[in-house]
Amino acid sequence: MASVQPKRTVEELKDLRSFTADADGAQRVAFTPTWAESRKWLRSKLEALPLEIHQDEAANLWATMEGESDRALLIGGHMDSVPNGGWLDGCLNTLAGVEILRRLTDEYGGRPPVTVRLVDWADEEGARFGKSLFGSSAASGFLDMDEARGLVDRDGIALPDAVREYGVDFERVLESGKEFTNAAAYLELHIEQGPVLLDLDLPLGVVLGTFGVERHAMAFSGQAAHSGSTPMDRRRDAFLAAGKMSQEIYRITDRNGGVCTIGSCVTKPGIVTSVVEECQITLDQRHLDGAALAQMLKEAKEASERFAEEGNVGVAWNRLWQIDPVLFDPGLIDLCDAAIRETCGVSHRLPSGPLHDAAEVARAGVPTVMMFLQSLHGISHNKIEDSKEEHIELSVAAMDRLASKTMDWISKR
Amino acid sequence: MASVQPKRTVEELKDLRSFTADADGAQRVAFTPTWAESRKWLRSKLEALPLEIHQDEAANLWATMEGESDRALLIGGHMDSVPNGGWLDGCLNTLAGVEILRRLTDEYGGRPPVTVRLVDWADEEGARFGKSLFGSSAASGFLDMDEARGLVDRDGIALPDAVREYGVDFERVLESGKEFTNAAAYLELHIEQGPVLLDLDLPLGVVLGTFGVERHAMAFSGQAAHSGSTPMDRRRDAFLAAGKMSQEIYRITDRNGGVCTIGSCVTKPGIVTSVVEECQITLDQRHLDGAALAQMLKEAKEASERFAEEGNVGVAWNRLWQIDPVLFDPGLIDLCDAAIRETCGVSHRLPSGPLHDAAEVARAGVPTVMMFLQSLHGISHNKIEDSKEEHIELSVAAMDRLASKTMDWISKR
Repeated sequence: MASVQPKRTVEELKDLRSFTADADGAQRVAFTPTWAESRKWLRSKLEALPLEIHQDEAANLWATMEGESDRALLIGGHMDSVPNGGWLDGCLNTLAGVEILRRLTDEYGGRPPVTVRLVDWADEEGARFGKSLFGSSAASGFLDMDEARGLVDRDGIALPDAVREYGVDFERVLESGKEFTNAAAYLELHIEQGPVLLDLDLPLGVVLGTFGVERHAMAFSGQAAHSGSTPMDRRRDAFLAAGKMSQEIYRITDRNGGVCTIGSCVTKPGIVTSVVEECQITLDQRHLDGAALAQMLKEAKEASERFAEEGNVGVAWNRLWQIDPVLFDPGLIDLCDAAIRETCGVSHRLPSGPLHDAAEVARAGVPTVMMFLQSLHGISHNKIEDSKEEHIELSVAAMDRLASKTMDWISKR
Repeated sequence: MASVQPKRTVEELKDLRSFTADADGAQRVAFTPTWAESRKWLRSKLEALPLEIHQDEAANLWATMEGESDRALLIGGHMDSVPNGGWLDGCLNTLAGVEILRRLTDEYGGRPPVTVRLVDWADEEGARFGKSLFGSSAASGFLDMDEARGLVDRDGIALPDAVREYGVDFERVLESGKEFTNAAAYLELHIEQGPVLLDLDLPLGVVLGTFGVERHAMAFSGQAAHSGSTPMDRRRDAFLAAGKMSQEIYRITDRNGGVCTIGSCVTKPGIVTSVVEECQITLDQRHLDGAALAQMLKEAKEASERFAEEGNVGVAWNRLWQIDPVLFDPGLIDLCDAAIRETCGVSHRLPSGPLHDAAEVARAGVPTVMMFLQSLHGISHNKIEDSKEEHIELSVAAMDRLASKTMDWISKR
């Protein structure tokens, strides 16, 4: 019986690294020559199989194995990386997908019961233009065209001009949405970008969805005053109010779950001899449950107003970004859970903090699930990103099982 | 009987403002042409009186009225201001001193029972070179010559070169210490640079001494981690520990008195999507009692270590600056208190948060006291610095009473 060869995937990942990474890590930034080279290399592997291959209007690369049914199983990843990135982020699943296509070629002579399509999304990371999920959000229809049209890289080159060099007419990118016609399920394997599986000592987990995000700036405004001559009870200390938020976010997650982060604090005038007049902090809140996320935001706002009042300072909020939670398909979650258990003996369900292309596919209405591979340091977007080779091999085998289960699932629906 | 004319002092302060201030405030920065002009104007007023006038080795201007006794009462102020400064800071007492010398000329025909000397200190503010109390610390002997020699202004001009243009041989500035020979008491009137007298609705107060200062930078070091994928209980959040200090400094002053200020907070990487890896804050602690100041510092260090341990982060301290408290003379404090009560009916004793030339004189061993004038906005180093004219007039009258009492006090010792 035909089967995947996970060791080959590990070898191919190492090959890819050999010509697309340097001492600082992977350098496959989308819409740059190294990225194009990595895609050419991927395409050469796909061309050895019985596949129709094309790039869509948003620079996503599609390889299609026609099946007995038009209804299609999609498997997706991304060859692009951040600068100084990890060797597994994104490309793990494009290469696992190639391996699954090889197995299907062997098993069904290139004509499986349902159509199977591998997609290499364009610019998942958004490293050059600061806008992630470019290709998948174009296909899902959620790309903000006006915003994307105005993006420039640090050399001042506009996104529409940059993508034109890679065969893309920017004004037509939303036409890539037609690729979802007949899409019946979407699967994505990705290295976990946190330490949850590492802490549990588990190789693989099934992802329940991606967190909704509320991202805000909060500015507390008090009064600058001399550090030596201003009595404590006369102070309007913006840092006192902001500092209280540092502990409050942990109380908010204790009550609601999810995660909260204050990533930046800026003080003005910011000198040793003055009470802080203005203190601006950022707040990033994430939860898989929309109602819980709204509650977290409400609690943070109430706390900030309470702290402002206690310290006789003002507070003003400014939303930087927001996205709703995206929940993956319950049926596919169960299949993924089963595939992992059959491969490793034990599985675990967890949400994804970071966004992924899978979220865009799910938002487009395609039943979706993701599988996470344990990250050795619980870290990504860094050259030290790594996983045990035995775990990488297990992930390829589990994805192959999941692909088979999903093909059955599609056939029966 | 001869008496001071406080209204004349107010008029002279307005005259001074008319040619040394602009729309942004006073511009009498030491060792600049506007400062030199203000001194020339002061000197012309002194030259109308029976005084010996000279500039010492540290650019301090001395005007001496020889008395029956060599033992000298010193009255000191400073003509220099910060850029965009207030109209009373420093020059109030040089002009009050001129008025007192006029009264003594009338009363004693220019030969009072003890010698009386007015000193206009050079560069109290340190605005050009970032080093305050230049002239008075040279005279007291506490000026750090190596540090001062290396100071440059923002145009790259070294302090020794700048002062040479104003007749100073930098290597000889400590010789100004000889001016303290025979000094028996030092009096300084200054606008309060805080809101204490304003809050009490009192025109004048007697100053007990200047706060000792402990000034430190504290760096908390944790681990950068993705805001979406890092569980709350896995975080090593440097801002969490630093934020706790914002409240702790108020608990420290509740227990010990004094004042504590966190004036600056800098976060790294300082982006909305990452837990803070490094957070540096500054701490400025001040107290009139040296033991209490040491206790405040001890408590801050212990708290920072406790917060670091709670959050699994590190903390490192770096002392930026330190000075011991300077206590004024108990006898002169009583005299000042009496002079204020006789002038206004009510007095108040308070410490000084900011440093003053008086602290250097006291460190040199000369019995010293200061009088504070209420500041209308509780603010200084700003063009809005102001006092009620009736309060300014009271301050001149009270200083004149204090001068008389102090001359008696010197005669009896």
